[in-house]
Amino acid sequence: MATELLLDSTPMHRLFASVRLATPSDVPHIQKLIHQLAEFERLAHHCSATEVSLSSILFNSPPFQSFTVFILEISSNPFQSTLPHPLFSPITQTLTFNLPIHDTEKETFRSINDDGIDAVVAGFILFFPNYSTFLSKPGFYVEDLFVRKCYRRKGLGKMLLSAVAAQAVKMGYGRVEWTVLDWNVNAIKFYEEMGANVLQERRICRLTDEALQTHGNANN
Amino acid sequence: MATELLLDSTPMHRLFASVRLATPSDVPHIQKLIHQLAEFERLAHHCSATEVSLSSILFNSPPFQSFTVFILEISSNPFQSTLPHPLFSPITQTLTFNLPIHDTEKETFRSINDDGIDAVVAGFILFFPNYSTFLSKPGFYVEDLFVRKCYRRKGLGKMLLSAVAAQAVKMGYGRVEWTVLDWNVNAIKFYEEMGANVLQERRICRLTDEALQTHGNANN
Repeated sequence: MATELLLDSTPMHRLFASVRLATPSDVPHIQKLIHQLAEFERLAHHCSATEVSLSSILFNSPPFQSFTVFILEISSNPFQSTLPHPLFSPITQTLTFNLPIHDTEKETFRSINDDGIDAVVAGFILFFPNYSTFLSKPGFYVEDLFVRKCYRRKGLGKMLLSAVAAQAVKMGYGRVEWTVLDWNVNAIKFYEEMGANVLQERRICRLTDEALQTHGNANN
Repeated sequence: MATELLLDSTPMHRLFASVRLATPSDVPHIQKLIHQLAEFERLAHHCSATEVSLSSILFNSPPFQSFTVFILEISSNPFQSTLPHPLFSPITQTLTFNLPIHDTEKETFRSINDDGIDAVVAGFILFFPNYSTFLSKPGFYVEDLFVRKCYRRKGLGKMLLSAVAAQAVKMGYGRVEWTVLDWNVNAIKFYEEMGANVLQERRICRLTDEALQTHGNANN
């Protein structure tokens, strides 16, 4: 994007993006992002994620072995190359736009950043290992991918998903999977452009609520 | 099933079924069952599961924390109630039929059984934890469910799936999920009778092979 030809009169707005592993101090931001995602999907009434419930399941295992979150941060200053993390070194990217981004929630999402960079949290991706018997390899399943509204259509969703794909390749895993609603044509187009196949014949079956409880009672 | 009214002249065939946690010594049977499943789904050419690849991913974590297998065993003798396993006590069931079952692969699937019971492995279910952000709870995802042909239509698939559902309830998990092909009407009927919802709008996206590798190269 930095190589785009711009007219002399066009002001150039540059931002820096970073994808890094989440830490326990990110939980309040992750919780707010999950609720924004639920609102976007018109499922806010189904969303029961709290800071306590998130803290209880994240960070119990080393990254990538169980439920894992990458955080997308944006800053007007370049991210310093901190010491490489033994398991995941942050991925950075420089973004250039013609128009400035107006982030009305900048204070809410101000990031606690070890290296002193003034940054905001702009999105996240939550994923965990799954397993393909046929490939005979693990993979990653992406449960949530979200970028805040003012940062959309700038390649940042792709940056997050691509970071998970890169991690899968690094670990020798066989695939990355996620789901999409069949009427969300923009999302489907975006995923197909990234090289994903949309499995048309396969349906998800879900046992939950009372129906699930029935099986619990039947065997005990 | 044992309570069915049978005519005096009808011979009664009784078998005993048990669902237990797999152990490393079950790997050769699991590998054979996975290949039978692949043949059934006409995907044998995609199936690369070997004993070595299975051993490398199973049994690395305590049961239920990662990839976990339940084994279905059948015997003409009742399973003894061995010492209860701290994490999972086998579930047993008595089956009664009008016709005997002719198992041509009895020797191949003869089970190594600690308590001296002469049993055969009749099926398996492979599952692992997943996570619902909205429920803010883990669940289980069932990757494979398989019952050998001569043991089908006897409630044994339900016994395996129900065992996973019961374990989910026991652990306070929110749901159990798996997938089905949309043309497999018998399977859909069976799952719906078990209380599952088939999600009609949701599609699985999959990034694999060269498309996955591209993302690995892009970020490194």
